[in-house]
Amino acid sequence: MDYQGGNIGRVFVLKMDHGDNILDEIETFANAESITSAFIFMLGALSEGNVVVGPEKNQMPPTPMWFRFSDAHEIIGVGNIFKENGKPRIHLHAALGRDGNTNTGCIREKNEAFMVTEILVLEVDGLEAERVHDEERGFSPICFRK
Amino acid sequence: MDYQGGNIGRVFVLKMDHGDNILDEIETFANAESITSAFIFMLGALSEGNVVVGPEKNQMPPTPMWFRFSDAHEIIGVGNIFKENGKPRIHLHAALGRDGNTNTGCIREKNEAFMVTEILVLEVDGLEAERVHDEERGFSPICFRK
Amino acid sequence: MDYQGGNIGRVFVLKMDHGDNILDEIETFANAESITSAFIFMLGALSEGNVVVGPEKNQMPPTPMWFRFSDAHEIIGVGNIFKENGKPRIHLHAALGRDGNTNTGCIREKNEAFMVTEILVLEVDGLEAERVHDEERGFSPICFRK
Repeated sequence: MDYQGGNIGRVFVLKMDHGDNILDEIETFANAESITSAFIFMLGALSEGNVVVGPEKNQMPPTPMWFRFSDAHEIIGVGNIFKENGKPRIHLHAALGRDGNTNTGCIREKNEAFMVTEILVLEVDGLEAERVHDEERGFSPICFRK
Repeated sequence: MDYQGGNIGRVFVLKMDHGDNILDEIETFANAESITSAFIFMLGALSEGNVVVGPEKNQMPPTPMWFRFSDAHEIIGVGNIFKENGKPRIHLHAALGRDGNTNTGCIREKNEAFMVTEILVLEVDGLEAERVHDEERGFSPICFRK
Repeated sequence: MDYQGGNIGRVFVLKMDHGDNILDEIETFANAESITSAFIFMLGALSEGNVVVGPEKNQMPPTPMWFRFSDAHEIIGVGNIFKENGKPRIHLHAALGRDGNTNTGCIREKNEAFMVTEILVLEVDGLEAERVHDEERGFSPICFRK
């Protein structure tokens, strides 16, 4: 475990409209506001989406299992924005439910808002953190510069 | 997508007691403290509840599907409080699980705390935001005044 | 319902590494930084875990139902840290999903990070709050001193 302390910076409320691609929109926002470190919290619904719902086995690099849907799912999400190679990278996990069942995982590719999706962004100031790709393990952990 | 920036205002920790109707209690709190813009985060359990778990079809206005239960479910939730017609309106999504299965959706009507439910409220200052009803689409999105 | 107001204090980002016992690590962090009141938000994955997924019946003290797993699950979580008998006590709920199904509940005992788990800690200053055990009801609610 590694950690670093900071302070709350700016706070933003984002409203996704029906049909918005939420990862694209968050990325556009992050570029426009020069976000380097932030956590995000989400509620709403998606009309279609793509979610990694676990690795096939407990091994790295992982072989992702996908859940892809095109019927509306209700969602809650927790994620963050850190830079990787100078660009904002969004890591966003969500529980996505519909009529008695829920999938939980990492939202990727195209995810379209159904009606509305609302997001709180808490900027964290004072960190020296960015994502650095680890080829062997197949992901990009947050690395703190100290 | 639309967004607005602000700052963190007051912070509150709410403890719901066994049997509390959580939406009523949050509304009472919001009126007592004159909350106009806030996000909320929740963990706990409900002994009974009512949740919209998606629209029947991908069309607006949506026909809601309901999950109604009276056996205790463990929960996590993300939501917010914005005013609509001058009154605090609570929009609260949750994942609600029990013994191997989870439903995810929008908590409405009566939802009673089992043992305890704990809530963090982060007030967001500096926004000009309120919910405005959209009759045609059947919901009340957050609208930013600029 | 009972509540108390405060302010955001320090903010921390914690990165759990593959194999870390997340509750032990959060406790180590809380002791090192003398955390008395905080909320935590989590995303990542667990290679194995132990979760209370509801009481058997709607009665107190509850008889917990357990979900124990050793295949990787994707997670989102919301929790808090308050002191009980002078020591930090972590209360952490999560939705944990894998390949089409999700469990939601209270994470306890050993829970090992798979690849990475990322956590935001928001300290809440200005509260007079701690957990006090209630033997009859079988849990330790947050109590506000006023």
